[in-house]
Amino acid sequence: MLELTALQTETQTLIDAINTTWVLVVTFLIFFMHAGFAMLEAGQVRSKNVSNQLTKNLLTWSVGVSVFFLIGAGIDSLVGGGGFAPAFGYEAPADWITWLYGAVFAMTAATIVSGAVAGRAKLRAYVAYTFLLAAVIYPVVSGMAWYDAGLLGIDGFVGSTFGVAFDDFAGGTVVHAMGGIAGLTAAWVLGPRIGRFNDDGSANVIPGHSMTFAVLGTLMLAFGWYGFNVGTSAIFNGEGAFLGEQLGRVAMTTTLAMASGAMAAGGVAWAKTGKVDTLYVANGLLAGLVGITAIPHAATWWGAFLVGGVAGAQLPIVFSIVEKRLNIDDVCAVFPVHGSAGVIGTLMLPIVVAPSYLGNTSRVDMFLAQLTGVVVIVAWTVVTTGLIWGALKALGQARVSREHEQEGLDVSEHGVETYPEFGDEGAAVADGGT
Amino acid sequence: MLELTALQTETQTLIDAINTTWVLVVTFLIFFMHAGFAMLEAGQVRSKNVSNQLTKNLLTWSVGVSVFFLIGAGIDSLVGGGGFAPAFGYEAPADWITWLYGAVFAMTAATIVSGAVAGRAKLRAYVAYTFLLAAVIYPVVSGMAWYDAGLLGIDGFVGSTFGVAFDDFAGGTVVHAMGGIAGLTAAWVLGPRIGRFNDDGSANVIPGHSMTFAVLGTLMLAFGWYGFNVGTSAIFNGEGAFLGEQLGRVAMTTTLAMASGAMAAGGVAWAKTGKVDTLYVANGLLAGLVGITAIPHAATWWGAFLVGGVAGAQLPIVFSIVEKRLNIDDVCAVFPVHGSAGVIGTLMLPIVVAPSYLGNTSRVDMFLAQLTGVVVIVAWTVVTTGLIWGALKALGQARVSREHEQEGLDVSEHGVETYPEFGDEGAAVADGGT
Amino acid sequence: MLELTALQTETQTLIDAINTTWVLVVTFLIFFMHAGFAMLEAGQVRSKNVSNQLTKNLLTWSVGVSVFFLIGAGIDSLVGGGGFAPAFGYEAPADWITWLYGAVFAMTAATIVSGAVAGRAKLRAYVAYTFLLAAVIYPVVSGMAWYDAGLLGIDGFVGSTFGVAFDDFAGGTVVHAMGGIAGLTAAWVLGPRIGRFNDDGSANVIPGHSMTFAVLGTLMLAFGWYGFNVGTSAIFNGEGAFLGEQLGRVAMTTTLAMASGAMAAGGVAWAKTGKVDTLYVANGLLAGLVGITAIPHAATWWGAFLVGGVAGAQLPIVFSIVEKRLNIDDVCAVFPVHGSAGVIGTLMLPIVVAPSYLGNTSRVDMFLAQLTGVVVIVAWTVVTTGLIWGALKALGQARVSREHEQEGLDVSEHGVETYPEFGDEGAAVADGGT
Repeated sequence: MLELTALQTETQTLIDAINTTWVLVVTFLIFFMHAGFAMLEAGQVRSKNVSNQLTKNLLTWSVGVSVFFLIGAGIDSLVGGGGFAPAFGYEAPADWITWLYGAVFAMTAATIVSGAVAGRAKLRAYVAYTFLLAAVIYPVVSGMAWYDAGLLGIDGFVGSTFGVAFDDFAGGTVVHAMGGIAGLTAAWVLGPRIGRFNDDGSANVIPGHSMTFAVLGTLMLAFGWYGFNVGTSAIFNGEGAFLGEQLGRVAMTTTLAMASGAMAAGGVAWAKTGKVDTLYVANGLLAGLVGITAIPHAATWWGAFLVGGVAGAQLPIVFSIVEKRLNIDDVCAVFPVHGSAGVIGTLMLPIVVAPSYLGNTSRVDMFLAQLTGVVVIVAWTVVTTGLIWGALKALGQARVSREHEQEGLDVSEHGVETYPEFGDEGAAVADGGT
Repeated sequence: MLELTALQTETQTLIDAINTTWVLVVTFLIFFMHAGFAMLEAGQVRSKNVSNQLTKNLLTWSVGVSVFFLIGAGIDSLVGGGGFAPAFGYEAPADWITWLYGAVFAMTAATIVSGAVAGRAKLRAYVAYTFLLAAVIYPVVSGMAWYDAGLLGIDGFVGSTFGVAFDDFAGGTVVHAMGGIAGLTAAWVLGPRIGRFNDDGSANVIPGHSMTFAVLGTLMLAFGWYGFNVGTSAIFNGEGAFLGEQLGRVAMTTTLAMASGAMAAGGVAWAKTGKVDTLYVANGLLAGLVGITAIPHAATWWGAFLVGGVAGAQLPIVFSIVEKRLNIDDVCAVFPVHGSAGVIGTLMLPIVVAPSYLGNTSRVDMFLAQLTGVVVIVAWTVVTTGLIWGALKALGQARVSREHEQEGLDVSEHGVETYPEFGDEGAAVADGGT
Repeated sequence: MLELTALQTETQTLIDAINTTWVLVVTFLIFFMHAGFAMLEAGQVRSKNVSNQLTKNLLTWSVGVSVFFLIGAGIDSLVGGGGFAPAFGYEAPADWITWLYGAVFAMTAATIVSGAVAGRAKLRAYVAYTFLLAAVIYPVVSGMAWYDAGLLGIDGFVGSTFGVAFDDFAGGTVVHAMGGIAGLTAAWVLGPRIGRFNDDGSANVIPGHSMTFAVLGTLMLAFGWYGFNVGTSAIFNGEGAFLGEQLGRVAMTTTLAMASGAMAAGGVAWAKTGKVDTLYVANGLLAGLVGITAIPHAATWWGAFLVGGVAGAQLPIVFSIVEKRLNIDDVCAVFPVHGSAGVIGTLMLPIVVAPSYLGNTSRVDMFLAQLTGVVVIVAWTVVTTGLIWGALKALGQARVSREHEQEGLDVSEHGVETYPEFGDEGAAVADGGT
């Protein structure tokens, strides 16, 4: 392994080393988003369901990354036109860096779903779905979108039809919209939590137990997101050219879209109620990030403000539609934050694209390529997710019992209390203290 | 954008790539300090004001970074002698990396203020002040201090007068003292929270709601601070020389000063009360970091212990003076932690400077340059901050009403409860559980 | 310091710069593990002892890193055969990067102990032990294990005897087992918390106060662990060869072992009780990480699953033995998580080693080298730790009084309340709010 000669430490090796260093660091940052999601979701659920939410997050990563190693990465390359090449069969250990880099994106899609089905999904149902998402659902999406020969790639159906590939830089649709739409679908099949809606269809608010954890999670996610977006650009491309210009643009657009999303969501909430709802500001910041994630390499600075602003402003509105019109109980608002925001940003590319990036491409062709990609990914996600949760429901395995839901999933599924010293009934403890 | 030739992947490009990789990573770390400040401040306010504090932190970043993009960076270069060059006008996208790198320092200064005015400032007043800080107040300071042609630079007034520039490596005065002094000034204009002081001038303690969040924030800040201090050194300088010696010294002094600050503050608290107050240890660790931030590139190892120790030891004493003599309600102790600690460290340079760094410079000239810089920055900050908050106060826009303050800002300004399931009155919820 | 010539920016300098950049970043990540340990431990103690636990974490770092600078690094090099070379005497400031890199590993060992002795150890006793651990106990271990000329090195006793050195890549035994065994020893000498065991030897559960903080800490640790394990590999070795293969293997095995540990611990808990205990899943994830830490550079992919699985599965079993058979009150389960998991993983090397790494080495020799290293390190740790805590106990300085323990250490040792607004008796506050 170490028998390299000094000759190899030439320019190409230095380039590989710099790219490798960068990829490892951003992979670690993206992994840290799991801690962010855990806190964001834990803060938004009731205290009787916090440990359940945390366990789901731990198992999403543990089960998902194992399955993605054994199966998912193979499906991804298969759909991308490279044959079934699972990660355990890699001959060069260095390729496991690329595998892990792909895995942290895959696991981000997976973990989004848990926020939508909080408070009533059975743990085993959620784990089963995560297994299938990591093995097949997500890898088919990434394989279609992120290989030249994939269905949405330049050499695939979309490229042949429109002369331009579906363009999703860091996964605004591939990762976030996919996760957000899967979450909405699962929440729809599963039905709402007890008491969430009245018989006349009007909604009751079930507030989360800790705004502090929710905002902590938001800021941890924003930190990891710099890895997610900026880290999607290598330092050098395959021809050895330094990508400083691309890195700079992505860093700028990611920053401005996140800022704009927070201000827009807070502003809409303020216009509607006269108060600046903290959770809308936080989720708006995330929606702004989601909105730019497909196109941070291509947007202008004003485009970043615009995309982030639209993604933030639609949040209170779309959340209200999901709640009041569709009566779907999307506990952590994953559809407006990840689903609609991701789709909107992906489709806005032709409007906000920098001239230097657009070149001679027709904005119409660009839009049609984006639209086709979105439609295909949404359809695939809705159908597969609906079938799986529908089957689990038909088997009576999707949801915990009414008693367990009321008691809280922490006790019924995990046998623990999250805060044994706080709340109505303090647990009796042995040491006599308070 | 990608049309570079292979020729460019020569040594200079490799150097640029390594510097770029480093700058991006440390920028992300410094951004993460916002999460740290959010937790540190949230932990130190009452539970009825937590969401207000978190919202301020989210909006500090969102509003501030937008304003710094549109205006602030232009003012910074203007004051630094480079003409008004706002970030939206950059021709090379790679320069946005440098912009973002500057922005995270600027936002650190901005966010410090929110800790001082907690629990009674109106959200709109705070946001207005943040706008002006990001647009003008901070950029004037950084422009004066961090350009050769700036007032405090080697080619400016200070350099011409003393033969040596004002030396603030990572912003001990430019960022931290500026923020801490702005916070003290704003808190003074705003007046204390209801009940904080008695008619005879004696003080009442209003404890924060969670030591755990405060210490979490402290340790997140310390993590980000490695980016802040060590990351202020590039990997290579402009002549292509590797800066390993500088990086090593900064890493060492930053570590020792933080350790020394925690021990000294804890020790003084222990000497005064017989107990090792957790919050003093945490804030002492931060004060040690602030103390060394101006001079980590220049201090000896024993100097790092000394500066950190002095910065930590002054914390309980200065806090007591602010509270008991001045009767200023600096909620999160931002003046002793960021203000006085930053000034003290900046002024201690001639005492602790390593001989190799001092060279032939006179310690007296060095001290006068440091003192001049501190005086100019403090005066500018106090005057501008005092004028703005004074104007807001005169307009009746600075402070929430007495009723809103007593009820808590979470409900009155944001319409939310941070912990709806804990505390005196549990909110009625729909799902029937606890 | 900056008077380097352009000539030096040749390949070797670029290699040094890349390695330096990487080492700094992973050092910061490993430092962040202190925040993770603080949250993990805070979550697992009662609310009356949280600030005590947080203070210990802050002082572990502050005292420990100062002592390691002044003494510990010197002992490390002395035992490793390089003479007493303390860090304050380094001539090249760049070497302080290497010092800090070593220090963050040392402090990880130190901080593990605080989780075992929570809730009853005197602060001064804990600080005294930390002083000695950082000055002598840990440096002797690292000096024996991580220098060629050390007792366990290739040129030392183990290498001469078995033809192969004790192999502990990132500190599975040197750091984690050392810390876990020190914790168990200290907890044993100190005795259990009041009420933890009944007169007949049966155990009472004293639950931690917040599962959310415990899981937050777990995920922060996992993030830092990528720095800990992957960061133990340089980017280039001393001969200038790029270590991409090693980096890829370590990244993969670390990921799979962590996933496997979480699933195995959760699975065993589920098999025993029918419920998936959240804390076992979290601690199992950590045990999987500990298990692989000695051997991530050498294990196969299936070996990573196996090592992680065994490390996770033993957790509920070993915890039960410590609790029910030994009646030792290891509050945060540091022995099963760090101690036994670290030893098991270290000893499993010959079973799971990749053929390319094994080469012509005999698996028996390899096992004997591993076993010898483990025995020596365990014996040294038990004896020194037992003597120190035994001496403190004999002097009446090891444990707080019965009254202080019942009242909680936050009040008695630190004069603070962690959550003054929650719990049985709300503190009277001045501002009239809730």
